Amino acid sequence: MQAQQHPMSLFTTMALNSWNGALKVSNKVLDALSDEQLANEVSPGRNSGTYLLGHLTAVHDSMLPLLGLGEKLYPNLEEPFIRNPDKSGLPKPTAQELRQNWAAVNEALNTKFKEQTPEQWLERHTAVTEDFAKEPHRNKMNVLLSRINHLTYHTGQLALLQGKK
Amino acid sequence: MQAQQHPMSLFTTMALNSWNGALKVSNKVLDALSDEQLANEVSPGRNSGTYLLGHLTAVHDSMLPLLGLGEKLYPNLEEPFIRNPDKSGLPKPTAQELRQNWAAVNEALNTKFKEQTPEQWLERHTAVTEDFAKEPHRNKMNVLLSRINHLTYHTGQLALLQGKK
Repeated sequence: MQAQQHPMSLFTTMALNSWNGALKVSNKVLDALSDEQLANEVSPGRNSGTYLLGHLTAVHDSMLPLLGLGEKLYPNLEEPFIRNPDKSGLPKPTAQELRQNWAAVNEALNTKFKEQTPEQWLERHTAVTEDFAKEPHRNKMNVLLSRINHLTYHTGQLALLQGKK
Repeated sequence: MQAQQHPMSLFTTMALNSWNGALKVSNKVLDALSDEQLANEVSPGRNSGTYLLGHLTAVHDSMLPLLGLGEKLYPNLEEPFIRNPDKSGLPKPTAQELRQNWAAVNEALNTKFKEQTPEQWLERHTAVTEDFAKEPHRNKMNVLLSRINHLTYHTGQLALLQGKK
């Protein structure tokens, strides 16, 4: 069975399929929302869609150094979208700029992902300081799985903006 | 490196860690919500938390036959929570009953998951009718990854009920 001949590349394929599928859903949701719709709170008193887009972009951007794939493209996003909550009063890029940043970050990640071998996905990520031999699951693939969950969590919230004005 | 000696069991461990982590987050959110809070819509005009709990329970229940692990425990949930939307007017279990069903379904799944070998996770799931050799990624592990994304998507919505009355 082909599945058992190359289990590592099969699992890598499955994990990347999951990542790409999650990105596809999020982009479908985002593309269907106008900038005005995106400015709404996903539920009264909660984060705006614009904030969530900035947050997702900043978190995905941080995957580049975490996975040892390069420097952040937009380090300016960390302060307003990771270290601080929505309505912080900090200056923020426009929704149009965030949409462009979001696309550029994911394109950079996916370009690098295509170059990764299954063995590289099992290497430890750059934030692991403990004894990696004792915790081999704290690898780059695990970061990917974790970030997929983060993406789908917030995509479920962004989807609530559909139909708003 | 241990990681490369048993790649399949390592991948299985990572995927199950992702599943258990997603369940843990969802249960933390659900446990912190009263039945009254859960009855609220996650955003005006959208699904109630109670409906989402029923929906997640029904979808997880359907994983038992899909993964070849047994029959559904609560087939009665499919009609009100998968085939029909919220506010269908169909009779529904109470939030207390749904919470119990949710716990029972996930316990049944996790009991079965512990018995699965890495090789079994790569077997095709019961809904695959095409030539499996050409699509080895359409396996049970892929169903698990897909359901993790489904769970985190709706968990992000349920989390919006925190702080509601």
